[in-house]
Amino acid sequence: MGMKVEQVLHMVGGAGESSYATNSRVQEKAIFEAKPMVEEALREVYKTALPESMVVADLGCSSGPNAFHVVLEAIDIVDDQSRRLGRPPPEIMFFLNDLPGNDFNSIFQSLEGYEEKLKEEKRERILPFYVAGVPGSFYGRLFPSRSVHFFHSSFCLMWLSRVPPGVESNTGVPLNKENIYISETSPPAVVESYQEQYQRDFTTFLESRFQELGFGGRMVLSFLGRTSKYAPSGELSQLWGLLAEALNAMVLEGILQREKVDAFNLPFYTPSIEEVKAVIQSVGLFDLDRVHIFKSNWDPFDDSNNDHLYDNFISRKNVAKSIRAVIEPVIARNFGEQILDDLFSRYAKNVARHLLKEKTKYPVFVIALKTKM
Amino acid sequence: MGMKVEQVLHMVGGAGESSYATNSRVQEKAIFEAKPMVEEALREVYKTALPESMVVADLGCSSGPNAFHVVLEAIDIVDDQSRRLGRPPPEIMFFLNDLPGNDFNSIFQSLEGYEEKLKEEKRERILPFYVAGVPGSFYGRLFPSRSVHFFHSSFCLMWLSRVPPGVESNTGVPLNKENIYISETSPPAVVESYQEQYQRDFTTFLESRFQELGFGGRMVLSFLGRTSKYAPSGELSQLWGLLAEALNAMVLEGILQREKVDAFNLPFYTPSIEEVKAVIQSVGLFDLDRVHIFKSNWDPFDDSNNDHLYDNFISRKNVAKSIRAVIEPVIARNFGEQILDDLFSRYAKNVARHLLKEKTKYPVFVIALKTKM
Repeated sequence: MGMKVEQVLHMVGGAGESSYATNSRVQEKAIFEAKPMVEEALREVYKTALPESMVVADLGCSSGPNAFHVVLEAIDIVDDQSRRLGRPPPEIMFFLNDLPGNDFNSIFQSLEGYEEKLKEEKRERILPFYVAGVPGSFYGRLFPSRSVHFFHSSFCLMWLSRVPPGVESNTGVPLNKENIYISETSPPAVVESYQEQYQRDFTTFLESRFQELGFGGRMVLSFLGRTSKYAPSGELSQLWGLLAEALNAMVLEGILQREKVDAFNLPFYTPSIEEVKAVIQSVGLFDLDRVHIFKSNWDPFDDSNNDHLYDNFISRKNVAKSIRAVIEPVIARNFGEQILDDLFSRYAKNVARHLLKEKTKYPVFVIALKTKM
Repeated sequence: MGMKVEQVLHMVGGAGESSYATNSRVQEKAIFEAKPMVEEALREVYKTALPESMVVADLGCSSGPNAFHVVLEAIDIVDDQSRRLGRPPPEIMFFLNDLPGNDFNSIFQSLEGYEEKLKEEKRERILPFYVAGVPGSFYGRLFPSRSVHFFHSSFCLMWLSRVPPGVESNTGVPLNKENIYISETSPPAVVESYQEQYQRDFTTFLESRFQELGFGGRMVLSFLGRTSKYAPSGELSQLWGLLAEALNAMVLEGILQREKVDAFNLPFYTPSIEEVKAVIQSVGLFDLDRVHIFKSNWDPFDDSNNDHLYDNFISRKNVAKSIRAVIEPVIARNFGEQILDDLFSRYAKNVARHLLKEKTKYPVFVIALKTKM
C-alpha cells in the first residue's frame, strides 16, 4: 500500500494505436474546450510581463500527439500579441513535464517533425522556440522560483499523488473492500481519506506553482470533476464501479484473489467544483479567473449532446478502450498482464449494460487562475 | 551522403554493459582531469552573477552513469561558494542535452535514485535543484538568449554536425576512397573540407553558446584533439585507419561492397590546439581562460603514463570495445548489424598489431572559456 503514483502511472505506450487514439480523442476535446481560456491567459501573461523569453510549461504532457498542442497554440498567440503591442518577437521556452516513466524519447524524436511542419506552414516569421522535457511529479516543485510565466495541464489533476492512507485500517486491514474507488458502499472514513488526500495534493500543487510563477503568472487547468455534492455518487464512481464489478466477478470465478482486489484502490479523485474552489480559497495564492464546465460522453467518439445512444456495441468498445489506455499499467502491475484482455472484455459488457440504462457523461472542469498580486 | 549526424549518432544503449562501462571509463578520466577547471569556472560564474537560480547545461550528456556527474559537482561547488560569500542558498536548474536519439528515458528514470543518494549523503542543507532534458544538436541554438550561466561538454565536440561535403566530387564520386577519416592517403581537398567543416561547426557552437550565456557566463569543454600540426598524421587518424583497414579487408573477401566502403566517412574531426585557438579568436566572443592537455591511453583501463604495454590481449579488447560503443550505430546503419562482430574482431587484431609497435595515446583538450565583456 501507499505506493507512489509516480511508480505506476504512465500512459500506455505499448497498448497499440487504437487505445492511444481513443484516449487522445478525449484530450483533444478538453484542449478544444479550453482553447479560448488558454488564449486569453497567454495574451494577459505576455501583456503583463512583456518578457524577451516567455516560459510555458505543460504539466502531464504524456507522449501522444497532443504533447505539442500547447506549443503550437502558444507560438501563435504570443506571436500575434507581440505584433499587436508592437514588440520585437520574443523567444519561447517550452517545458513538457510528465512522470519519469513517461516516454520522453518518443516526444523528443517526434519534435523535429513538428518543427519542420511548423516552418512549412508559417513561411514568414516564426518565433524562436526551445523545448525541454521535465521528469517528475507536479505534486512538488519542478522549476526554480519565478521562472515560469504560464502553466497548462490537461486531464491529469484527477490523479492523486498516492492512494489515500485511509483505505486501510491502522493494522493494515482493507476498509474499501470490493471497491477500487469511493462508492455508495465505501465506509465514510474511506471517503474522507480520499477527500483529504485531494485537498493535500491540490494544495501542494497550487503552492508549488505559485513559487514557480513570476509576477502576473497564470494557469489553465482542465481535469475530470463531478456534478453531485456527495462524492460517492459521482459520475466516475459509476465508471470505476463497473470495473470493480468486473474484478469481483473474476474473484468469484477464482481467477483473482479476493485479498488482492480488496486491497486495490485507485489514486484518483474527481472533486466537485465547490471542493476545487474551497482549496483555491484556503491556499489563498491565486484568483480564480474563469470556470468552464463541459460534459463529455463516456464514448469519446460520440460528439452528440443528447441522451440518445447511437450504437451500444461501438460505444462500449470505445469506452473500454479509452479507460484501458489510462489504467492498464496500474492493473497490470497489481494483477498481472495476463488478466487484461479478460478484464476489459467483462468491463465493456458492464459498460454496455449501464449505457442502455443511462448515457452518463463525464463533467470536465476547465479553470483559469492568476497569481494574486 | 550529407547525412546529418543527429540522425545516426547516439550512444549505444543496447550494446551491453561492458562496452558501456569501457566508454564511461574514458569519460570519467576526462571529468577527473577537467574537475579543477569546472570548479573554478562555477565559482567565478556564481561570484559574478550572484544568481538566485543558477542555470547549468551539460551538452552531449549521453545516458550513462556520467550524465549526472556535472549535476553533483555543481551542487557542491555552488553550495560552498554561496556559503563563503554569505549568500542565501541558490537554486540550480540543470539542463541535460543530447541528440534526440539519446536515451533520455533512462536518464530520467535513474534521476530519482541519484536524488535519494544525494539526500542521504548530505544530511544537512542540500541546494534545491531541478533537472530537464533538452533534445537537439549543440551546433545550433538550444536555449533562449541569456538564459544559461555555465556550459559543460565532455567528449562530444570532436563529432561534426555532418560528414564534410568535400568527401565527394561535385558529381558525387567518392574522393576519400578506402579511408573513413582523413589519412596520409586522403586527397588535400578532402583534408581541407574536413578542416572547413570543423571551423564552421565550432564557430556555430561558440556563436550559439554566446547568445545563450548571460553576463559573466563560462564554459568548460573537453574533447579529443591531436598533437601534430599536420591533420592526416593525427592520433585519431591512426585509430580510424585501423578500422578502415578492417573494412577494406572485408571488401577483399567479398563481405562488403567496395562502393559502400569508399563512400563511407566519419563526421568527426580532431583539431590541433592551434586550430581551436584560431576559431576562438576569429569568432571573437570568448576569452580562452585556461587550456589543459592530457593524454589518455587507447586502452581506457590502462592508467599508466609510460610506454609499456601491460597486456596486449586485454588492451586490444578494451580498445575495440570502447570504440565499438561509440561507433556501432553509425556502422550498423551503413553496413548492417550483421557485420559488427566480424568487423570489431578484425579491428581488435589490427589494434593489437599497432600496440606492439607503438603505444599511441589520445590527446584530450580541456579548455575553459569566458564571455568577453
